[in-house]
Amino acid sequence: MRKEATILRPSQNGDRYELFTPTAMPKAAGFLWNQKMMIQITCRGYATAQFMQPEPAKYAHAPTIEATTFMQPEPNYYAHHPGRFVYIKDEETGQLFSAPYEPVRVPTDKFVFSAGKADVSWTVEHLGVRVEMVMGIPTHDVAELWTIKVTNLTGRPRKLSVVPYFPIGYKSWMNQSAEWNPDLVGVVATTVTPYQKATEYFKNKYLKDKTYFICETKPDSWEANQVSFEGEGGLHNPEALQQPQLNNSDARYETPTAAVQYRVALKAGEQREYRFLFGPAYDEAEIGAMRSKYLSKEGFSRTANEYAEYMERGRGSLRIETPDKELDNFVNNWLPRQVYYHGDVNRLTTDPQTRNYLQDNMGMNYIKPEVTRKAFITAVSQQEANGSMPDGILLVEGAQLKYINQVPHTDHCVWLPVTLEVYLSETGDYNLLKEKVKSSNGDEFTVFERFSRAMDWLLGARDERGLSYIAQGDWCDPMNMVGYKGKGVSGWLTLATAYSLRIWANVCQHEGRADLAKFYRAGADECNAAVNKHLWDGDWFARGITDDNVTFGIKSDPEGRIWLNPQSWSILSGAASPEQITKILPQVDNELVTPYGVTMFGPPFTKMREDVGRVTQKAIGSAENASVYNHAGIFYVFSLYQLGDQEDRAYSLLRKMLPGPSDADYLQRGQLPIYIPNYYRGAWREFPRTAGRSSQLFNTGTVSWVYRCFVEGLCGLRGDANGLTIRPQLPSNWDSIKVTRLFRGATFYLDIRRADVLDVVVKHNGRALSQPRIDNIRAGQRYDLTVLVPQ
Amino acid sequence: MRKEATILRPSQNGDRYELFTPTAMPKAAGFLWNQKMMIQITCRGYATAQFMQPEPAKYAHAPTIEATTFMQPEPNYYAHHPGRFVYIKDEETGQLFSAPYEPVRVPTDKFVFSAGKADVSWTVEHLGVRVEMVMGIPTHDVAELWTIKVTNLTGRPRKLSVVPYFPIGYKSWMNQSAEWNPDLVGVVATTVTPYQKATEYFKNKYLKDKTYFICETKPDSWEANQVSFEGEGGLHNPEALQQPQLNNSDARYETPTAAVQYRVALKAGEQREYRFLFGPAYDEAEIGAMRSKYLSKEGFSRTANEYAEYMERGRGSLRIETPDKELDNFVNNWLPRQVYYHGDVNRLTTDPQTRNYLQDNMGMNYIKPEVTRKAFITAVSQQEANGSMPDGILLVEGAQLKYINQVPHTDHCVWLPVTLEVYLSETGDYNLLKEKVKSSNGDEFTVFERFSRAMDWLLGARDERGLSYIAQGDWCDPMNMVGYKGKGVSGWLTLATAYSLRIWANVCQHEGRADLAKFYRAGADECNAAVNKHLWDGDWFARGITDDNVTFGIKSDPEGRIWLNPQSWSILSGAASPEQITKILPQVDNELVTPYGVTMFGPPFTKMREDVGRVTQKAIGSAENASVYNHAGIFYVFSLYQLGDQEDRAYSLLRKMLPGPSDADYLQRGQLPIYIPNYYRGAWREFPRTAGRSSQLFNTGTVSWVYRCFVEGLCGLRGDANGLTIRPQLPSNWDSIKVTRLFRGATFYLDIRRADVLDVVVKHNGRALSQPRIDNIRAGQRYDLTVLVPQ
Repeated sequence: MRKEATILRPSQNGDRYELFTPTAMPKAAGFLWNQKMMIQITCRGYATAQFMQPEPAKYAHAPTIEATTFMQPEPNYYAHHPGRFVYIKDEETGQLFSAPYEPVRVPTDKFVFSAGKADVSWTVEHLGVRVEMVMGIPTHDVAELWTIKVTNLTGRPRKLSVVPYFPIGYKSWMNQSAEWNPDLVGVVATTVTPYQKATEYFKNKYLKDKTYFICETKPDSWEANQVSFEGEGGLHNPEALQQPQLNNSDARYETPTAAVQYRVALKAGEQREYRFLFGPAYDEAEIGAMRSKYLSKEGFSRTANEYAEYMERGRGSLRIETPDKELDNFVNNWLPRQVYYHGDVNRLTTDPQTRNYLQDNMGMNYIKPEVTRKAFITAVSQQEANGSMPDGILLVEGAQLKYINQVPHTDHCVWLPVTLEVYLSETGDYNLLKEKVKSSNGDEFTVFERFSRAMDWLLGARDERGLSYIAQGDWCDPMNMVGYKGKGVSGWLTLATAYSLRIWANVCQHEGRADLAKFYRAGADECNAAVNKHLWDGDWFARGITDDNVTFGIKSDPEGRIWLNPQSWSILSGAASPEQITKILPQVDNELVTPYGVTMFGPPFTKMREDVGRVTQKAIGSAENASVYNHAGIFYVFSLYQLGDQEDRAYSLLRKMLPGPSDADYLQRGQLPIYIPNYYRGAWREFPRTAGRSSQLFNTGTVSWVYRCFVEGLCGLRGDANGLTIRPQLPSNWDSIKVTRLFRGATFYLDIRRADVLDVVVKHNGRALSQPRIDNIRAGQRYDLTVLVPQ
Repeated sequence: MRKEATILRPSQNGDRYELFTPTAMPKAAGFLWNQKMMIQITCRGYATAQFMQPEPAKYAHAPTIEATTFMQPEPNYYAHHPGRFVYIKDEETGQLFSAPYEPVRVPTDKFVFSAGKADVSWTVEHLGVRVEMVMGIPTHDVAELWTIKVTNLTGRPRKLSVVPYFPIGYKSWMNQSAEWNPDLVGVVATTVTPYQKATEYFKNKYLKDKTYFICETKPDSWEANQVSFEGEGGLHNPEALQQPQLNNSDARYETPTAAVQYRVALKAGEQREYRFLFGPAYDEAEIGAMRSKYLSKEGFSRTANEYAEYMERGRGSLRIETPDKELDNFVNNWLPRQVYYHGDVNRLTTDPQTRNYLQDNMGMNYIKPEVTRKAFITAVSQQEANGSMPDGILLVEGAQLKYINQVPHTDHCVWLPVTLEVYLSETGDYNLLKEKVKSSNGDEFTVFERFSRAMDWLLGARDERGLSYIAQGDWCDPMNMVGYKGKGVSGWLTLATAYSLRIWANVCQHEGRADLAKFYRAGADECNAAVNKHLWDGDWFARGITDDNVTFGIKSDPEGRIWLNPQSWSILSGAASPEQITKILPQVDNELVTPYGVTMFGPPFTKMREDVGRVTQKAIGSAENASVYNHAGIFYVFSLYQLGDQEDRAYSLLRKMLPGPSDADYLQRGQLPIYIPNYYRGAWREFPRTAGRSSQLFNTGTVSWVYRCFVEGLCGLRGDANGLTIRPQLPSNWDSIKVTRLFRGATFYLDIRRADVLDVVVKHNGRALSQPRIDNIRAGQRYDLTVLVPQ
């Protein structure tokens, strides 16, 4: 299925992606993270990096006062955007270019951008010079490790200036400066986070307010002043580079920058290698320590190995070999990496939304379930006295609920059982439920009791019709005005409540609490019945009912007529009868499916609908207004796998979540297939030019579910209290796949192929099992299974 | 005294300033305002504009998410900064340049930037083409009126593309787009101010979120998409201009811009004239209405006349003719304009700091005292129940205290009598004191009673030593940690309290309340005595005493050793004896006076001193850390005029507040002499490269005092209850000046000259008066006076 891409190519072992032109996909980027930092860097050299201290902060900025905001989709890049660049000047001819591409933007003879799992690198050739740039980061510290190699490709001696330019930008109206530090061999920018109230000072006192750019090798000249560097030439032709030497100018309450110049004479074929460290620090002593620790060939090499090991620990528990090699590459390499990112660092926030926190940790079940276990305890320790869950989970002392977490949402409790189900199926660790957890309001309950209290809260948070209140939002915050007066209800949330109650009832059953199981099942049935009574619109389920008792998400709505989530969750919750499902699926196909995936709803809102709220004010095709919002899409895929993947509906939508495999698709989406973004632009009918574009934002609850769909859906490998069931659901044009699955310490090698069987047949050591499942699994053991699936 | 500048020149009548090169002073800017908007635009075309709705907002943005902040000094400009530009392309040769200068930055054959009182304009010549750009604004609406004239200066026909490019920038992560509107003949960008809580929506609902750029004449092509316009060319050579036509591309959740292209064939000498309107609007109907109202030759001409009349109403009450023509020009044209700006629009804030509000209105006494009168009533109507004044005065419904106004300061009451003194001396309107004013906390008092209550509060807000508590700041917020624990005291504030009490005692006396006069005089004496007892350091007064009982601003302090304000106000308050003054003045000369004015304190702080606070964290030479902070400087000048201007100390510092008159000084300050900035960089000894640089920020309480110093100090024309006293204080190298002064409806023409007299002699109609004063002034009358001053 994979075609030879002229623009993009995965590396042999799949752990890199290579792009061969900077202009076709200008936003194509790699990203690296550790528990303290994250950096997203584009093929052209623009970078967005943040680190935790403990709130997200930056060490390189735009040259203007930027707003502090949450991670935004579809970032804008412009000449002075923060980035990492190297100017190369031929000192004999005066010709200039920059690697990777910005800011000079000269078309080069060769360009390769290579986004790896553990580093990001470039190879650029121009004017007979090869420039290789590699960026890595440490596993535990905040810093960028840059290697820059320059090679004379010609057969004659050359005189070059090599000028790394790392703009530091505008950080503080209170205090900023930069100067050359000869002991540290680099530019050190000193800034002070502004404060006004005296109390803020003490909060900011130990922030890493300095930014440094230090060099392993002493350069010939330097520049610490942005305006002085640029002069009248502009970034595409800086005045400082029109002279023999940089200005050696400091910055005094002026915008800091870091540029250093190496004037080198290279023999034919000769190569020079430079190393630099770029990052934030509290003081010079810390910079000195970082220098000693990292800034050497040995330090770089050791750090790269450690970081590769760190990434390797996020390898996940599934490997597939299918007819679709790009899919294999994504599922085996990149998907678990993205899942790992979410579970490992919680999106680098200190107050993740509760639903995100739980779902991100749901993915971590497949990588490090002990992390998920802790997350459940952390989450329920913040349960309110009334059983509800807060809008965000505070992860560090002093953290506060910010942004959307200040807007009351009513769905958080739902995610407890929904995500617990995976923990239990992966680990069988029902002991978690017996843990006693004290909350900050002083009450103490077992995890089991806390979950029950959350379920009770959900049951109580419904109106007289049995429908769940929405307050200022459920789930993904697009509808903040349906229920802000306290009356509006959510069809989706009522269904999600039913689904959650059903899962919890099963757990109660397992724990020997048949009474509770019965109670919660009855609650689920009640929710389903209420939705069927009030929200079935003939061919699909409505989205909700507003404060003023207006049902919406129905046929007569010209905009926002059909919403995906209520349909998906009516399947999961059992609200939808087989007959209803037969009606729903073609409607989704017709109204919501696009070449780029399934949209969250349709048609898009073109104007404000005050009784619905924010989503109707959003730009068409953006995050929430009729976009291909992958998180909603994956719920639908998941629900389709529950039904059995009829007509490849589930798989085809799943496959569309990854960019490619055609060049045209890569170009339209503008993203390398190294992560699933939170959305692709929708409004395919209204604005085809922009439809399908990636948000370029890798923070998304989608990925845990995608992994789950591959594990449980496509591969059909689902754990339960006693073992592992095996029910693969291959796309219709696949004959066989091979799967390796880690499960409870054992390794399963599955050879799955179509055969003339009526139901799935599993053979272990050549012997067909009576059921397609393995019980009594022993850790450390290897299971070689042949799985026959019906044709 | 004026020399022929090669860089800068005032126009004949002084109401314009012309700059002849864009590179020498890249930040040189003009500014225009009305009650709803303000725009500062640099000679190179970068602009910062804001308008009130009711909080300050923007209609053109950077291409990144900017922080919402107060007006910042020393703005950064970079290629994508908001601006107003015209590209000119020779369609026969492909050559390109842009007017005024950015973004192409081609050195042109001729460049004139002309900052006027009522418009800002440019003339640029290059490639045989003259481009004239003029920007005006209306008196009552928010919009920019742009005229662009293009003239073929050659003797041959030319084919040109004229491409106005007005970037709109990144406004909203919620919703932004832009498209061509054929009915309005322009680009209309639609954005939505983001909101999360439902309540915010209703606040934002009627914001003018659209930005439009409409054309009187239909262009040949257009571009509404920033990325599409720039392409790979960059702003210095946009890809869209490398083609015959712009792309006619809309922006869909992409950064909006506005560019239009006119392809013109010009005969030898032929000229084309274009008009455009740029601004914010609520909807298309409003844009249509603006178009009808303004976008025509007649509309532009009418608007320019109205605006010139509006500016004329801020002409002030003083005109001088001195040997220093640049000074005359500044005092007669630009100083009252800046005073008018402050009094007319209160810095375009909705919550001016109380001290700023009162001082800005102090200046308005010389222009429209009825505005000042109202301001007093507004201010005291917000007096707290305990007599104190709030940190800011709320000017519109729904306004809130923001930024520094959330930090408790203790000096606000001081400014009531200090600024009232000018109102009374200008108008003699003691009736104001009898007005009853009800406050929002329900109490009702006369203005007189409210002032007395404020004085009582000041007397009470002192410690057991009789020194005034500083809390988190007095005056200009640089010391937020001296007294945040509740104990620290301010030397300056104690002196200011004494000065304020003395003024108020005089008012009490005038109002027949000798008992109160005596009481407040005793309070003033007590304050002065306390300062002398606890804060006299041998050669100057200390600045204060911290929470931990550490006196600072004293000889043994290596940094922040001597502060200007306590010295100035010890003179004003009467705390300093003549002997002490003799000690103080040379110390100020030695420690604080620089070629660019007098610094607020010295030596600068190089590191945090936690018991002092913010100022010690500020960048050296920036707003507060040892800068030439003009507001502090002018108090000193004012106090020196009270003493009699010995050795030209007052005048020489006053003169240094204006840029120039030498080219070297203009270059160093980087500012046209059309306003006094809030500071010039200090740290002249530490960082001479940057010392003297203008903050480029025209918001400052300085200007009212500068005007007052010219009126009362240099010209010596001070009103009192009965009339006008006349005691000029000419600089020693001046022999004579002529002054026109409007006062209580009469016009005074003064011919002031040195003569062989022992004291000032005033002659009216040739007859020497017994006292240098005029009583019983009749409105409408003309007074021709000859004033003889001692040699």
